Amino acid sequence: VYLVLLHFPIVNRKGLEVTTAVTNLDIHDIARSVRTYNLKGYFIVTPIEDQQELVGRILSHWKRPGVAQAHPDRAGALALVRQARSFSEVKTILEEEEGALPEVVLTDARVLPHSISYEDYRRELAAPSLNRPVVLVFGTGWGISPSFYPEVNRILAPIYGPEGVEGYNHLSVRSAVAIILDRLFGQ
Amino acid sequence: VYLVLLHFPIVNRKGLEVTTAVTNLDIHDIARSVRTYNLKGYFIVTPIEDQQELVGRILSHWKRPGVAQAHPDRAGALALVRQARSFSEVKTILEEEEGALPEVVLTDARVLPHSISYEDYRRELAAPSLNRPVVLVFGTGWGISPSFYPEVNRILAPIYGPEGVEGYNHLSVRSAVAIILDRLFGQ
Repeated sequence: VYLVLLHFPIVNRKGLEVTTAVTNLDIHDIARSVRTYNLKGYFIVTPIEDQQELVGRILSHWKRPGVAQAHPDRAGALALVRQARSFSEVKTILEEEEGALPEVVLTDARVLPHSISYEDYRRELAAPSLNRPVVLVFGTGWGISPSFYPEVNRILAPIYGPEGVEGYNHLSVRSAVAIILDRLFGQ
Repeated sequence: VYLVLLHFPIVNRKGLEVTTAVTNLDIHDIARSVRTYNLKGYFIVTPIEDQQELVGRILSHWKRPGVAQAHPDRAGALALVRQARSFSEVKTILEEEEGALPEVVLTDARVLPHSISYEDYRRELAAPSLNRPVVLVFGTGWGISPSFYPEVNRILAPIYGPEGVEGYNHLSVRSAVAIILDRLFGQ
């Protein structure tokens, strides 16, 4: 199972399709969650070259021998981070490395039709019959653009708090990743 | 139920007791999780006056009429944030407002004796016999200092990923808050 954080195609507050900026804490917090729940990798997807360079600089900092030794936990998490220019590139890489195209799972704060519950999908992921890689796709900004939907094979239900307060649905992507990985893989 | 984020007394990498710096994203991400899971308030505790002023400035920004109207979800989460100079001050405030001293629940990435499982504590919190406020206390830096332990009534078990990878335990406090609130109050 892999995690993908998309910075394109994303919608902004007004519903327009945009590319969002990579943030340092999205790299760190999500890498630590990915490491905790034993995922195989975390792809940061942005088409902007400057942003790829920025991510590259951050990642190489944590690979330096002195830094990695002083902060082994942090370095161990960041070692799982990879980059891609587009979602197609992620698919090409996974097909090459895993021998099959991945199942693409959309996570979204909006209610979308045909979504699967965490309980059911957890059971599916644990089944020994799983014979292709899975990518859990998270968006930034105001969510993943509908232009991405043709890529999607499965949709996970949005996260809500206790019964009766379903109205509020505005977690950070860092928090949503943590909760979803715990629901799918936690003890 | 309230949430408390301590910036003192905290231990640093070397085990020394320190005061950590407040970070903007700890305010935002945790406020959004607190709002999602319907907690009553979120106290940011720091003894440093400059830091209190910084938090105050951030909070007043989000209370301005134009800002609050343009971002109602964000403003609604930040409206739950309060400040205190010390944990004693939090207790005094809650005793005054709720009529009873709170049950103090420690969350810690380290394994501590006599911890309670999330399942058991979720059941306790849902019981109608609960007759005093509860504060879930989270630390920053390398965790809450042992000098805080005399305050603690209950301890929640650390969060681990799937069975077999218990060795890694290095989530961000933002992620840990999200997971713990989901385990205690999520659907």
